[in-house]
Amino acid sequence: MTDTKHHETALRTLIQQWVDATCKGDLDAVMALYTPDVVAFDAIGALQHKGVDAYRQHWEMCLSFMPPGGEMIMEPHEVTVSVGGDIAFAHYVSRCGCIDDKGEQQIGWLRATVCCRNMPEGWRIVHEHYSSPFDPQTMKIAEDLAP
Amino acid sequence: MTDTKHHETALRTLIQQWVDATCKGDLDAVMALYTPDVVAFDAIGALQHKGVDAYRQHWEMCLSFMPPGGEMIMEPHEVTVSVGGDIAFAHYVSRCGCIDDKGEQQIGWLRATVCCRNMPEGWRIVHEHYSSPFDPQTMKIAEDLAP
Repeated sequence: MTDTKHHETALRTLIQQWVDATCKGDLDAVMALYTPDVVAFDAIGALQHKGVDAYRQHWEMCLSFMPPGGEMIMEPHEVTVSVGGDIAFAHYVSRCGCIDDKGEQQIGWLRATVCCRNMPEGWRIVHEHYSSPFDPQTMKIAEDLAP
Repeated sequence: MTDTKHHETALRTLIQQWVDATCKGDLDAVMALYTPDVVAFDAIGALQHKGVDAYRQHWEMCLSFMPPGGEMIMEPHEVTVSVGGDIAFAHYVSRCGCIDDKGEQQIGWLRATVCCRNMPEGWRIVHEHYSSPFDPQTMKIAEDLAP
């Protein structure tokens, strides 16, 4: 396996670790994937979150929205990874949401861009950007979106 | 100037070229900054745009929203650039909107992530992601945001 292929595989593994940790609601496992100086643009809430401590507080708020007994769904599709030297970026669209305790799905599509740095401890996320596009007529999140 | 500094300067110039071309409504100049296979996640409209031809159609729609005689405003703040080998990523928050022909400002903040590749013709954008976060209670774009 070439070096580039090796790193691309490591980055896809990192994205899957993030998905698995998020779906489990394992906050420590999620936060371990970020650098201390991460700058994050999340789909909801503040314009930006600077540093892992501030971002952890935002994550705690996000996880509190999960319905008790519900199941989180996050399925990355069309994952594209580019590596150069000690940095990398990836983007994908993600089917995500939750199934509540009555079995009802609340699911939509998000876009994700993940920027990474190869640290002594391995690849870590230095910047991420999640969002939904909005309808400029209503200023609401566009629904019924699909890739 | 080191190679890295040289590339960082080139990338900041690329971002400024994009801003200048956008504010002028110069579609050809904007599109010249993308690779043919660009994948874009824009703040409004579809979930994603694949390829420069599809993205140009979206841009034409966006520019049609500009009020006649109005002035477009796009001010990148907190621009961060990382370069590795032949790829790079940048992120910033942007004060953007327009001043209409009555002099009224319609301005808000967006987040931007720009991923680039060093091509034979220079740095080009292979992926970009623009968005506003939304309020999960109303599903509307959060207003009164600031960095």
